[in-house]
Amino acid sequence: MHDFQFYIPPEKVRNKLVTFDGEEYRHCCRVLRKNRGDVVKVFDGYGFHYNVRILNIYDNYAEGEIIKSYPKEKSVFPEVILGVGKIKNSALDTIVSQVSSLGVAHFYPLLTRHSVKRGFKKGRFERIAIESVKQCGSAYLPKIHDKVSFDNWLNITQDEKLKLIAEQVSSMSLLKVMDEMKNIDKVTVMIGPEGGFSDDEIKTAKGNGFIPVNISKRRLRTELAVVVMLANIYSLVSMEDV
Amino acid sequence: MHDFQFYIPPEKVRNKLVTFDGEEYRHCCRVLRKNRGDVVKVFDGYGFHYNVRILNIYDNYAEGEIIKSYPKEKSVFPEVILGVGKIKNSALDTIVSQVSSLGVAHFYPLLTRHSVKRGFKKGRFERIAIESVKQCGSAYLPKIHDKVSFDNWLNITQDEKLKLIAEQVSSMSLLKVMDEMKNIDKVTVMIGPEGGFSDDEIKTAKGNGFIPVNISKRRLRTELAVVVMLANIYSLVSMEDV
Repeated sequence: MHDFQFYIPPEKVRNKLVTFDGEEYRHCCRVLRKNRGDVVKVFDGYGFHYNVRILNIYDNYAEGEIIKSYPKEKSVFPEVILGVGKIKNSALDTIVSQVSSLGVAHFYPLLTRHSVKRGFKKGRFERIAIESVKQCGSAYLPKIHDKVSFDNWLNITQDEKLKLIAEQVSSMSLLKVMDEMKNIDKVTVMIGPEGGFSDDEIKTAKGNGFIPVNISKRRLRTELAVVVMLANIYSLVSMEDV
Repeated sequence: MHDFQFYIPPEKVRNKLVTFDGEEYRHCCRVLRKNRGDVVKVFDGYGFHYNVRILNIYDNYAEGEIIKSYPKEKSVFPEVILGVGKIKNSALDTIVSQVSSLGVAHFYPLLTRHSVKRGFKKGRFERIAIESVKQCGSAYLPKIHDKVSFDNWLNITQDEKLKLIAEQVSSMSLLKVMDEMKNIDKVTVMIGPEGGFSDDEIKTAKGNGFIPVNISKRRLRTELAVVVMLANIYSLVSMEDV
């Protein structure tokens, strides 16, 4: 059986009572036709899973009570702050869905020289993230941020210690960088849109402490580069634990 | 400038003369309107890149001559034979495109208990592979195979030495397996469709020498699991070279 779960953010939990509304209400009570007394699994986006028994179903919302709380889920290690050059929304859909399954902590669409400037409805991408986390069974939801300018991104990440920028022509492999850094618990990563970063942007990023790394000799599409980069970061860092 | 390349298989190269036909002819001469005398980049799918000058353009084909041959491109290491549970074609499009960019050697769609049986036009997926390799700049084309039954797949891979099956509940991490194997130059990998492999299939695969490995504690979609698995195999094995 598919272990289906619903998303209930912490503000909708009060003294063991939870409220289902909006999309989660619709899905739970209208699509899956859950009834009073049914028990469903819930996650809060911050690492907690609950079993919830449905108490009352109204026209636009439902109430339930927590009958079981699970221990906090271990978050994905290291914490990743990810900035991706804004590309067309259909490709961004895939990226947001996949990075949410993989467990990034923060996602920023970046407005860079070669990025597709128009469109980015934060709410829509938050929904995609929720659907992805529901499906993958995790209890953590990434924070989806509004699009930011290149300069703003550099400001936001100014104080981060380990910052990487994906660059195909860099001679430094991700492997080598990760190997040289010990006790990594947080990584900031920026990956270009189709067409990559401009030379100026790479220069500026370097000046702001970003280390250029290559993840492939091939020219990978943004969607693919993002997953390869994350898969490698998660596996290389967790090696320290082995 | 985008370093565009065309695909010309070895049988269309004779004594430095190459023939563009079909889709490559259409793209080169009709879409991009290349003319006599223009020089274009070509790959043969087996590791070679050429510069080709166009000599003659006819109604349905064009001829060119090789004016420069590049040294054979280093193939991706290790060689990967990949079997993926057949899923719906739109998701399979993404997988074929992405694994072609990453450089797998062989791709097999597997007919398993939970796979989507219908549809798989080999020619269509060969085109997707070609487009992906054109875009990523490599000179290697994966071999796209017809769909095979689970039993046939086990026969085909019978003599392979290192064989992995992705299994979410396995306690063995990919990391550990790769670490224990030395001098890996070839890996056979099987990844389930949506819904995974059945218990019987996992048991049978184990009986045939497949080692169950987990790549994530989360339930990843097939498309994502494939890329995470490959990214890790390529980065973990190439560590031996560092």
